[in-house]
Amino acid sequence: MSYLHINNKQYKFTQGKSLLSIIQENNLGMESPCGGKGTCGKCKIKIIDGNINDLTQEELRFLNEEEIRNNIRLGCLVYPKEDLKVEFISNEVQKHKILTEGYMPDFKKSPVLTKKVYKLNKPTLENNLSLEDILNSEGIKINNNYQALIALPSIFENDECSVVYLDDKLIGIECRDTSEHLYSIALDIGTTTVVASLIDLNRQCEIDCESDINPQKEYGLDVLSRINFCKINKNGLDILNKVLIDCINDLINKLCKKNNINKENIYELAVAANTTMMHTLIKINPESIGRAPYSPVFLSGKSINANDLGINISSFGKVYLLPGVSSYIGADIVAGVCVCDLQKTDKNILFIDIGTNGEIVLSKKSNLTSCSCAAGPALEGMNISCGMRAGDGAIENIKIGELIEKKVIGNKQPKGICGSGIIDAISEMARLKIIGKTGRIQKRESIESDDTLKHLSENIVDENKKRKFILDINNPILAITQEDIRQVQLAKGAILSGFYALLKTMDIDIKSLDEVIIAGQFGKHLSVDSLVGVGIIPKELKDKIKYIGNSSKTGAIMTLLSKDIRYEMEKIARDISYCELSTEEGYERLFTDCLKF
Amino acid sequence: MSYLHINNKQYKFTQGKSLLSIIQENNLGMESPCGGKGTCGKCKIKIIDGNINDLTQEELRFLNEEEIRNNIRLGCLVYPKEDLKVEFISNEVQKHKILTEGYMPDFKKSPVLTKKVYKLNKPTLENNLSLEDILNSEGIKINNNYQALIALPSIFENDECSVVYLDDKLIGIECRDTSEHLYSIALDIGTTTVVASLIDLNRQCEIDCESDINPQKEYGLDVLSRINFCKINKNGLDILNKVLIDCINDLINKLCKKNNINKENIYELAVAANTTMMHTLIKINPESIGRAPYSPVFLSGKSINANDLGINISSFGKVYLLPGVSSYIGADIVAGVCVCDLQKTDKNILFIDIGTNGEIVLSKKSNLTSCSCAAGPALEGMNISCGMRAGDGAIENIKIGELIEKKVIGNKQPKGICGSGIIDAISEMARLKIIGKTGRIQKRESIESDDTLKHLSENIVDENKKRKFILDINNPILAITQEDIRQVQLAKGAILSGFYALLKTMDIDIKSLDEVIIAGQFGKHLSVDSLVGVGIIPKELKDKIKYIGNSSKTGAIMTLLSKDIRYEMEKIARDISYCELSTEEGYERLFTDCLKF
Repeated sequence: MSYLHINNKQYKFTQGKSLLSIIQENNLGMESPCGGKGTCGKCKIKIIDGNINDLTQEELRFLNEEEIRNNIRLGCLVYPKEDLKVEFISNEVQKHKILTEGYMPDFKKSPVLTKKVYKLNKPTLENNLSLEDILNSEGIKINNNYQALIALPSIFENDECSVVYLDDKLIGIECRDTSEHLYSIALDIGTTTVVASLIDLNRQCEIDCESDINPQKEYGLDVLSRINFCKINKNGLDILNKVLIDCINDLINKLCKKNNINKENIYELAVAANTTMMHTLIKINPESIGRAPYSPVFLSGKSINANDLGINISSFGKVYLLPGVSSYIGADIVAGVCVCDLQKTDKNILFIDIGTNGEIVLSKKSNLTSCSCAAGPALEGMNISCGMRAGDGAIENIKIGELIEKKVIGNKQPKGICGSGIIDAISEMARLKIIGKTGRIQKRESIESDDTLKHLSENIVDENKKRKFILDINNPILAITQEDIRQVQLAKGAILSGFYALLKTMDIDIKSLDEVIIAGQFGKHLSVDSLVGVGIIPKELKDKIKYIGNSSKTGAIMTLLSKDIRYEMEKIARDISYCELSTEEGYERLFTDCLKF
Repeated sequence: MSYLHINNKQYKFTQGKSLLSIIQENNLGMESPCGGKGTCGKCKIKIIDGNINDLTQEELRFLNEEEIRNNIRLGCLVYPKEDLKVEFISNEVQKHKILTEGYMPDFKKSPVLTKKVYKLNKPTLENNLSLEDILNSEGIKINNNYQALIALPSIFENDECSVVYLDDKLIGIECRDTSEHLYSIALDIGTTTVVASLIDLNRQCEIDCESDINPQKEYGLDVLSRINFCKINKNGLDILNKVLIDCINDLINKLCKKNNINKENIYELAVAANTTMMHTLIKINPESIGRAPYSPVFLSGKSINANDLGINISSFGKVYLLPGVSSYIGADIVAGVCVCDLQKTDKNILFIDIGTNGEIVLSKKSNLTSCSCAAGPALEGMNISCGMRAGDGAIENIKIGELIEKKVIGNKQPKGICGSGIIDAISEMARLKIIGKTGRIQKRESIESDDTLKHLSENIVDENKKRKFILDINNPILAITQEDIRQVQLAKGAILSGFYALLKTMDIDIKSLDEVIIAGQFGKHLSVDSLVGVGIIPKELKDKIKYIGNSSKTGAIMTLLSKDIRYEMEKIARDISYCELSTEEGYERLFTDCLKF
């Protein structure tokens, strides 16, 4: 029997298994999108000590020289022969043991929602207090809670009752001992995706997760078009609200059915979302977010009756909305900042959530500033000539060598390119100088005269005075056009300039940055090489990049599991200052500079 | 021009008018059920100084020797000729200037409900806080008030807003300056009658009052039969609740229409009612009130959303339920105690609310004890052979002299006798010894042999071995039967024994009692002579009797006009101890003794 040493702990293993399998069996958290086939290159890990098999050909595809020098290997292709000591590397963050995905920091668990069981004293002729006063003498305060009050006659038909408290305040009372059943849901409402995570508060962990496309996308792909939908349609807000609530109720139903849980035993929903989503969720007109001076209606954390919102959980259930910072730095970002502990770090850390909107937070030794950049939908594959959402048939990875290697989702015939594929492609084109610093695709003649590139000369096509780079000669529809490159260029320019503007505002040199954290579902799919290659992140930060996954959902979970974090979240939201880029001096020039590859 | 001096103030008058007219013109509050015709004897007043007409024959009918000695006169029959100084007498309590009826003590006005107007700062690019935070910086805290939150976009379309506070807590926010419109309603829900009083909180006064029969009476005349109705009918509670809520909404509509007020500007309802009515009002099953150990579901004061109860006032309006003491000493009695300041008197005062249930509170120098006596409906004319509700055609006063004089409501042909008429009749029969101490009607022969009574001998009739006293030989249906007398006897026995039991419990001699206060709509119609004559109140207390009118309604009004009184009400409810007569030692014998006339 041999031992794997990691994180100052040791885990038994039997020889013959891959390092990845051993790590996954012990629930130590390591992603493997390709399922251990050695084709995705995501399971990088640092070997500290121990006897293992030699570096394989497959690994050479994914490891650069520096990584090889540093004993980085792919976990799925390493077969330990004896005791082995390894270390997770910076861009592969360790996952929490119970959660199915996403990093969660250590914190003291003290759920906001609790349940307590009481034995009931019945009134007697000698002591015929009102039922309410009998409970009161046990410390159960009904006060003005009408729903609890009308339940009392049936409560007293039993010998026990269960009282549900939210932050020590009674919110409901139930017949008999129901203490076994105490659930909440963390909800991450993205512009594109809605994720619902079922939390068992007795076990203090996530037990299941469901997600769905945000049905509002029918009415606009980004927040501004949805705000506009509310503006031009009299019942636009009602529609956006209704489809979202229906979607949430569907996710709740699914989670309940799969886990054999009664909706009545879900007592709270914690919601992280951008500011526009938050407004449409509670049916508040978001119009003011979309026009100067860009004031939202509300930002602070709220606790609202689930009934009032039409959300089907316990009849006395509550919906907690996490606090936001501004119209364009929402509660999802506050959640991420908290998950990364940016409010109490002694480092300089940059946090970026890449999506249709790029949100950036800079923590200068806990001093927090943020900005938002309108990246546009190009990075997610929209507004791109052959762009498509990440789904079956989408090219998600591209490597340009002798051949142009393409990884297609679902291993289907390629139909288009999704966001990560486009960024890969442009990153590769920039690396090989198929495009110049300005983003211009080189002429076929220039390529032909370059020995290392001339095999690609036929991929450069001029059509109707527009140039494009074809990814597959046999399927010329799959191409990156000059216009596509401009779109991506604008997006990367927006993010990169926001990045530099924040550094400047906070008077930090790029070399003083200790970490760059990439948050969000989408960011997770962008490799370090692509991010750096396309220039969204400057090259000098390559080794400082970490991925945090869906920190919006994780933050929402944390507000369910800890009172302190719920309070802290409010404080973080107040403490993050917001920097409006468009009014920053010199921003225009900075943006132009940042367009360059 | 001459002056009327009263209450240390003077009022101009022109000669030729009756004293009653002068008092009523100046809104000083004096009742005159007969409208100044000299036939009801209610407008008694003490003449201190001044030249007036001599005592009239009509007045002699209503004034006893002592009153005449003390210069008591009937206001409607006094015509002042020059300056006159008068004083209200104890059993005719001065009414508040603005209120249309009922005594209200002096207290500091500080309405619980307030409205404040704010100028709105609009967000700017330099200061683009959320709308909520802009209000917050002005001290307007929306917090978790969902209704207020969703109103904000429309609020900010204007330059001003009005914020409604309940006890300094924001309950709602309105567009523009609506400070002129600030109303509440005081509601007295009796088993028989529902009274709604419209309060203008800007003027801090009652501006109108409407009442209606409690529609629940279709389902039982007293609280026990209504509780039973809930018990035997699956949807009994729903029915009782619905008809009551409908009735309340009708009264609110009437008040709004008559006074040209918008329902949305009524922000609170304060409700005084007995414990069973309170339960059915908020749709809580009252069954536990009706069976041992007689525990109600709740007693403490409550503030509930009007919406939750289906009461149509402001969409964010509240319903305040006054606190009660026990299943049979409700919030209506607590209100009465507060109106009479029994919680801070240095006297010994007995408070009686006579009705289907007789509730008695004894204040021994502010030390409060209560009991409840099941008087039954006889005193209100129910369960009586020719009994009827006080309405057109009901005999309400009876005087037996040479003739039997009957005063009929509406001056119609008499159809039956209402409560006050029955008590009058039995009081007269006892005075003339037509009935003996045990309540037995004398034989016709005994009456014939009595010179002062023999003219009434034909009124005594034996029929089917049952004796009765006919009030009108030409209409023998109008009669008081032996059984009727037994019913009244049981009622008066219940109240009188409760009265004595309380004195005994508190160790007070009857001579130490300083006042006996008769509360309630019904009690108002019982003259001192009848109350004493029939023996509900012992003779020695005759001159100590005061009438307070509908103190339940008045108390509810006071909780709207004063925060302090609302708090005090809660304290009073806790401080009144409750004495369960049926478990008191020796109560049975006391009750038997109290049956005697």
